[in-house]
Amino acid sequence: MKKTVLRKYAKLIATKGVNLKKGDTAVIRADLDQPEFIKMLVEECYRAGAAKVEVEWGYAPLTKIHVRNRSVKTLSTVEDWEVAKLNHRAKTLPAMIYILSEDPDGQKGMNQEKNAKAISARMKVIKPIRDGMENKYKWCIAAVPGKAWAKKMFPGEPAGRAMEKLWEAILYTSRVDDDPVAAWDAHNADLKNRCDTLNSMNLVSLEYKSANGTDLKVGLIENALFLGGGEYTLGGEYFNPNIPTEEVFVSPKAGDAEGIVYSSKPLSYQGEVIDNFYIRFEGGKAVEWGAEKGAALLEKLITMDEGAAKLGECALVPQKSPICQSGLTFYNTLFDENAACHLALGMGFSNCIKDYDKYTLEECREMGINNSFVHEDFMIGTDDLSVVGVTKDGKRVQIFKDGNWAF
Amino acid sequence: MKKTVLRKYAKLIATKGVNLKKGDTAVIRADLDQPEFIKMLVEECYRAGAAKVEVEWGYAPLTKIHVRNRSVKTLSTVEDWEVAKLNHRAKTLPAMIYILSEDPDGQKGMNQEKNAKAISARMKVIKPIRDGMENKYKWCIAAVPGKAWAKKMFPGEPAGRAMEKLWEAILYTSRVDDDPVAAWDAHNADLKNRCDTLNSMNLVSLEYKSANGTDLKVGLIENALFLGGGEYTLGGEYFNPNIPTEEVFVSPKAGDAEGIVYSSKPLSYQGEVIDNFYIRFEGGKAVEWGAEKGAALLEKLITMDEGAAKLGECALVPQKSPICQSGLTFYNTLFDENAACHLALGMGFSNCIKDYDKYTLEECREMGINNSFVHEDFMIGTDDLSVVGVTKDGKRVQIFKDGNWAF
Repeated sequence: MKKTVLRKYAKLIATKGVNLKKGDTAVIRADLDQPEFIKMLVEECYRAGAAKVEVEWGYAPLTKIHVRNRSVKTLSTVEDWEVAKLNHRAKTLPAMIYILSEDPDGQKGMNQEKNAKAISARMKVIKPIRDGMENKYKWCIAAVPGKAWAKKMFPGEPAGRAMEKLWEAILYTSRVDDDPVAAWDAHNADLKNRCDTLNSMNLVSLEYKSANGTDLKVGLIENALFLGGGEYTLGGEYFNPNIPTEEVFVSPKAGDAEGIVYSSKPLSYQGEVIDNFYIRFEGGKAVEWGAEKGAALLEKLITMDEGAAKLGECALVPQKSPICQSGLTFYNTLFDENAACHLALGMGFSNCIKDYDKYTLEECREMGINNSFVHEDFMIGTDDLSVVGVTKDGKRVQIFKDGNWAF
Repeated sequence: MKKTVLRKYAKLIATKGVNLKKGDTAVIRADLDQPEFIKMLVEECYRAGAAKVEVEWGYAPLTKIHVRNRSVKTLSTVEDWEVAKLNHRAKTLPAMIYILSEDPDGQKGMNQEKNAKAISARMKVIKPIRDGMENKYKWCIAAVPGKAWAKKMFPGEPAGRAMEKLWEAILYTSRVDDDPVAAWDAHNADLKNRCDTLNSMNLVSLEYKSANGTDLKVGLIENALFLGGGEYTLGGEYFNPNIPTEEVFVSPKAGDAEGIVYSSKPLSYQGEVIDNFYIRFEGGKAVEWGAEKGAALLEKLITMDEGAAKLGECALVPQKSPICQSGLTFYNTLFDENAACHLALGMGFSNCIKDYDKYTLEECREMGINNSFVHEDFMIGTDDLSVVGVTKDGKRVQIFKDGNWAF
């Protein structure tokens, strides 16, 4: 890929992504796949005004080796200095940039149960600190090609060409054209219009119907806020958490969902695939489920903690979205969640409440924002999906028709 | 390079290098050049019994970018959590493995003055903690090829072949043959014999002479201890700090050196070269110096702090050493210091005193072990170098003749 194009992408992440200002600190988390691009990104972060840029490298293939060789106790330990680091982050609130490139099959063969135990234990220490940071800092997730990922997406191509094609796919869906910054401004304006329309309707529930059997009614929190594209921190700083993004989403009322929903795409979870599955909800909670493939893993996901059985997100994505139209499966949620309407099991977003900054996180959760260690999207969008919104005064409004926006 | 050979090398580092035992923690610091090898090394650490292996990745090309874009203040800051991490290391004493692969010219064009200021400031916080760890933990420095390094060493070769040749050079000089563990046992036995002989002589000074003008007398600490090959921690654990190593060395008496010494090989320092230089010592301190190339940088090195003008190490390496015989210049001290006799400016080694574990670090320094932020080797070995040892009772013993061991 041409360096000039990559530099535009790096600049897009540093400016539109985390919207760096003079004096900011930025932390970049990346795997080892594209050091040259990360170097460019570091430069663009400084150019945007950052006073300090830190890079935390990871190497995903080591995770499996650690899980195999360490005891659950050693895997679970969060050292004092790690807590000190998290607290430092919670205090100084650096902009966080997550650059994904992982092998979709990288965790295959890992002892997921052992890993889940360790994650649960670590999360008990980490999550309260993270909760304290919620909505306070700018963050952005974007992607770069990794060899194994490219090979998975383009199995017929030689390695170099597969990497090139993945760069093309990432840059195309991320709107890295002649002027990516202008493209993102236009895209954000469109998503904002749709959110404004939905937020003016005073919706109390969404009703999903599809010929595949989906028939689900999801209750919304009073004063629920539909979001899409850019977001604001509590301090009023604008940022784009996902590059790319096509969705308009809301966090539903955790205890209020009735009916059944069928998956429309495979769910890649912990390196394995759950496919052709359904979940039936009663009183907001998953009470029955099944899958043609990966049923045990689905059960593990749903029973991970109490909140994992409840919904944390309802996202609307038209079948006309570029990612859907590309016909590509990315085996990566950042992209694939933007290919179709989806729901998420697990943690909800407290900023999906009007004037959310007036409430504590605890109050948001009391209103119905779901709490969990996990947040896992699964796709339910189909070419015939209908979504009807029911307003506070009982009116029914067609929101999605035949898989696309009805307005 | 064949995976079976690389695995032998990884095992050599995990077992002979840091001598991992059941329950140990190992920390590996590596650049991004050879993730596959690092993965093997992690596996071999676990196989040797490690309960936890951490990898800290670095990417040297970022250093220059950070130095250019951050303020001295931001570069100098050691965050509280970093102090907590260092203290955790000082308390738990993990085995440290440093895998080098850096571009010898990587720091070219960096603002060295700015960087040195920041390092000095950081060292004020870091060094007291590091001092507290001295001689208490197992550590090992070894190397793997990096692209820029390979290109520098084998400029005429295509990239892939240069990398292969560098692997060959590293593995050959590191004695990774059919049975590297046995080879290291034999090598260590030879170095130990030479140390035992030197340590039985009760030497009070070393006199260096060469036709190039070198005429230097260096005083030794009473009860000075010559070391070579493997070392012991204060807790009695054996380890090999350098792979490869050919030297037998001692820390001289910091305040006792008279005469002049001429360099025999270029010194690569902070990414730049100091060549054909001399240093004249009076009362143990460099008082006059000059260089055909890099004179300003030599001055910066010598005046870095008070201890940088004094000697911290005298190392004896025969011209017959495999690294010298290979004729290769590695542009990396780990190898090049094993190609010739050398001295070091800066920090001395407190374990170069007999029964050093009976003394505090402060007492060792009072006896003459030099203290400084820097430790920089420079080569003085020539084909005609003579080293004469003077014993406590005034006898003169030929130690090196014509650049090789005289006994």
